[in-house]
Amino acid sequence: MLGLMQNQPLLISNLIEFADRHHGDGEIVSRRVEGDIHRSDWNEVAKRSRQVANALDSLKLGHGDRVATIAWNGYRHLELYFGVSGSGRVLHTLNPRFHPDQIAWIINHAQDSVLCFDMTFLPIVQAVHAKCPSVKHWVALCDADRLPAETGIPGLQSYEALLAAQPDRYRWPEFDENTASSMCYTSGTTGNPKAALYSHRSTLLHAFAAAMPDMMCISARDSVLPVVPMFHVNAWGIPYSAALTGCKLVFPGPALDGKSIYELMETEKVSYAAGVPTIWQMLLTHMKPAGLKFSTLKRTVIGGSACPPAMIATFNDDYGVEVLHAWGMTEMSPLGTLCTLKNKHLSMSNDEQMKIRLKQGRAIFGVDMKIVDADGHELPWDGKAYGDLLVKGPWVLSAYYQGEGGDPLIKDELGQGWFPTGDVATIDADGFMQITDRSKDVIKSGGEWISSIEVENIAVAHPAVAMAACIGVAHPKWDERPIVVVVKKPGAEMSREELLQFYEGKTAKWQIPDDVVFVDAIPLGATGKMLKTKLRESLKDYKLPGNPT
Amino acid sequence: MLGLMQNQPLLISNLIEFADRHHGDGEIVSRRVEGDIHRSDWNEVAKRSRQVANALDSLKLGHGDRVATIAWNGYRHLELYFGVSGSGRVLHTLNPRFHPDQIAWIINHAQDSVLCFDMTFLPIVQAVHAKCPSVKHWVALCDADRLPAETGIPGLQSYEALLAAQPDRYRWPEFDENTASSMCYTSGTTGNPKAALYSHRSTLLHAFAAAMPDMMCISARDSVLPVVPMFHVNAWGIPYSAALTGCKLVFPGPALDGKSIYELMETEKVSYAAGVPTIWQMLLTHMKPAGLKFSTLKRTVIGGSACPPAMIATFNDDYGVEVLHAWGMTEMSPLGTLCTLKNKHLSMSNDEQMKIRLKQGRAIFGVDMKIVDADGHELPWDGKAYGDLLVKGPWVLSAYYQGEGGDPLIKDELGQGWFPTGDVATIDADGFMQITDRSKDVIKSGGEWISSIEVENIAVAHPAVAMAACIGVAHPKWDERPIVVVVKKPGAEMSREELLQFYEGKTAKWQIPDDVVFVDAIPLGATGKMLKTKLRESLKDYKLPGNPT
Repeated sequence: MLGLMQNQPLLISNLIEFADRHHGDGEIVSRRVEGDIHRSDWNEVAKRSRQVANALDSLKLGHGDRVATIAWNGYRHLELYFGVSGSGRVLHTLNPRFHPDQIAWIINHAQDSVLCFDMTFLPIVQAVHAKCPSVKHWVALCDADRLPAETGIPGLQSYEALLAAQPDRYRWPEFDENTASSMCYTSGTTGNPKAALYSHRSTLLHAFAAAMPDMMCISARDSVLPVVPMFHVNAWGIPYSAALTGCKLVFPGPALDGKSIYELMETEKVSYAAGVPTIWQMLLTHMKPAGLKFSTLKRTVIGGSACPPAMIATFNDDYGVEVLHAWGMTEMSPLGTLCTLKNKHLSMSNDEQMKIRLKQGRAIFGVDMKIVDADGHELPWDGKAYGDLLVKGPWVLSAYYQGEGGDPLIKDELGQGWFPTGDVATIDADGFMQITDRSKDVIKSGGEWISSIEVENIAVAHPAVAMAACIGVAHPKWDERPIVVVVKKPGAEMSREELLQFYEGKTAKWQIPDDVVFVDAIPLGATGKMLKTKLRESLKDYKLPGNPT
Repeated sequence: MLGLMQNQPLLISNLIEFADRHHGDGEIVSRRVEGDIHRSDWNEVAKRSRQVANALDSLKLGHGDRVATIAWNGYRHLELYFGVSGSGRVLHTLNPRFHPDQIAWIINHAQDSVLCFDMTFLPIVQAVHAKCPSVKHWVALCDADRLPAETGIPGLQSYEALLAAQPDRYRWPEFDENTASSMCYTSGTTGNPKAALYSHRSTLLHAFAAAMPDMMCISARDSVLPVVPMFHVNAWGIPYSAALTGCKLVFPGPALDGKSIYELMETEKVSYAAGVPTIWQMLLTHMKPAGLKFSTLKRTVIGGSACPPAMIATFNDDYGVEVLHAWGMTEMSPLGTLCTLKNKHLSMSNDEQMKIRLKQGRAIFGVDMKIVDADGHELPWDGKAYGDLLVKGPWVLSAYYQGEGGDPLIKDELGQGWFPTGDVATIDADGFMQITDRSKDVIKSGGEWISSIEVENIAVAHPAVAMAACIGVAHPKWDERPIVVVVKKPGAEMSREELLQFYEGKTAKWQIPDDVVFVDAIPLGATGKMLKTKLRESLKDYKLPGNPT
């Protein structure tokens, strides 16, 4: 017997229609590539999304055709989020931090029909356009009079001219909620990039989950600054959750330096910001010497990579900002866990709470997770046992686009498929998960595992250390031993011995790295994470002290 | 092209599995019919829900069979919520406030196979059981040794004995998320009661929406007291949202008096409570003379009927508790709107905010609404125009069980069906809806409409008034004129003239009632609302002063 409730598919067009009708004058503020501050609202975004949809119709794009973007966080990108997906096409957000060769490869793999880009990225488009025959329309996200005369890109048109020619009435089509809505490529550790292909259903369920009180807690009273990029993992789904809740959105555009972010937070009364540790480090570095404080910021969710404990403490203790540790991945839309406390934790001391806050957090409803040993057997939730972290849920990937990489899921005894995250983690009795390492980064020393992240966290707690990466190097007796590669803060002085001594008492003796290597910079990947593969490569001639092999 | 995300139906069993796995020791505290306080947790609720499912299997109940409950808010009722629906049967919550004849009629209409009831309601079951041949199993929600020897109910068994015989392992079945999960009858204004038949999908989407920051804002840190009954409109969906978030639940059982509720709030550190105005009035009446304060209560959502402004002010000003006005109905699962402010309202004065707080609120994503005139044309959102309120969304009813009452939906020009709520409302430019009346209660005086609710709100603001109902009586010149029927507070004195004078300056002259009728009590319906039909009936011989007709 079926229920008798209204049968409505969950569609991305519902989100923008809702924001238009119920939160029309909710503000959308963007720092633009042009340098100025642009002010829009949900009415305007909805209207221009409909113009985007009409424009795609006029370009004869079919249902399911891919429209790529290479763009910063801003109102035009937001309009494309709704106009492209809402009209039944697939929004393909491209990460400009990929190498142009990879970008060309990805565009061809996705068979994009249209590419829309911020002028910042003109050089990338100039480098790749001749290699991308599927792209019929190149659209620069600017006014017509900002288009350079000679770009070498055939038929390049301005977004504003394209939209201006379109009516602003449009009837959003209705279709199966499992229809593909958007896609995002992720750089695997091996092989070519692979894409997650999101659906309208997965996106809407994630939008609900992401806005929940125990996740990002987004209400119509919030002013939300997503520093996490819209060109990667949908800015944690914030554009969708924002439309669902009608919150104010504040977009930083290309200006991710501490000063620009700080000013935007203050002038637009930002209450909540989402970002990765590297960006927040720049923000704190700007604020500290000037003695600046936040007037309105109440909480920030930090994810993308493990957040150094020192940073959580600084935000909490010095600035009164609640830091919530988050974890997710492209294949999870992206949110999986967030570290919000439970009722039973409220009576704990700050110190005890801090121990919990260092973890990546607990799963929101919709995501289930487990840790397994090398044989696939589930490990206990005791906060000690660690194993490969697997996840499942309605916004977790089931297969990569075009079946790349085969079937990624691991079946359990009930036949349910689990996605292997590539992370190694513990889960405690309260369901709080803590990443101990990436499966490929964990250091195997004498049959025991050493977490490279733990070694790094201790290093960055030293006042002279700006960045630290721990990698394993071959050892004749122990198989592998950890060393720590360090970038010092500008002007800071510190010896190898000082840092090694700093580890004393903070971790087990055998987990203290064997050596410290000072470098000027640690290579970062397209998503801002440290590229340990490159680091290992650059240190391939390195030898452990006292170790002739 | 379909997305490539995991294909998982939204099932109520997912909720209890999640709460079991991720919030196992989250507390469930119940004041029992037995009088004591019972302590359980999500692990225990999950385990016993599985025993319920096994018990239904052992009773040979088929998929979709109806299991009825007549029970207070408590842990056993919660177990039935998950065990019955999770195993593919339909949970039919019966409202004990219906007349026994209606209850028998409803049981026969629903063709319930099992009826589970709290011992409070034994007299009802004794009155109806012989007329309900579809019910094969009568289950008393108590220990075996609490079963009276002679009840006259054949084969009556105790819930605890039934569960004790069952294994606590159970594999929840997987099925279409549109499968019926539960049902609730509502007393229409005409004809027999009609049932809303909820689905697993509608229930889960509503559970997400209801827990959102702008709705009930439920997190794992909350201790939630649902005074709104689980026997009606699913206690606003709190049992489901609670499992989804892992919050602590505190159930009042049958003790809804001010003292019992207050004590439970204090001992269980309740942070959030949901109820109807009549219950909160009893709570305030208990607290005020004793000078009691709330230690932990932060906010309360008030719905079920329009909340008197004086009560909102008392909670806010005297007790520091944020009162959120809510609106919904059985046919909406039940939540439709909640009155939480927007970003732009934050800088307003308290007085200006209060004007907004008096409204029923704005729609959450998933619900759309409109007001239409007598010809079905949509009216503007200007806060002034009022018309019949229509709603749609994935947790809004499309048809009543068994097709009773025909197709209730009204089609718009796009062919979309809207459910007519029977309320008359305004909607302002920010989407805040305010009920001005029930379509059937509005008083039509000289071509103008007078809101009976507005007349009542002024009356209950008078310190001597305990309850007030405004009804229209026939008038030869004006068609109808309002009168107000008043119950005075115990010991309070007030004349007709005093109350009429109290209206001066508070509303337009022609909206002031023509007369005051003092009564000892106003008849209340099964859901606690004033029964104006009965009131009109009892006053059918009433004549307006100076009006001979």
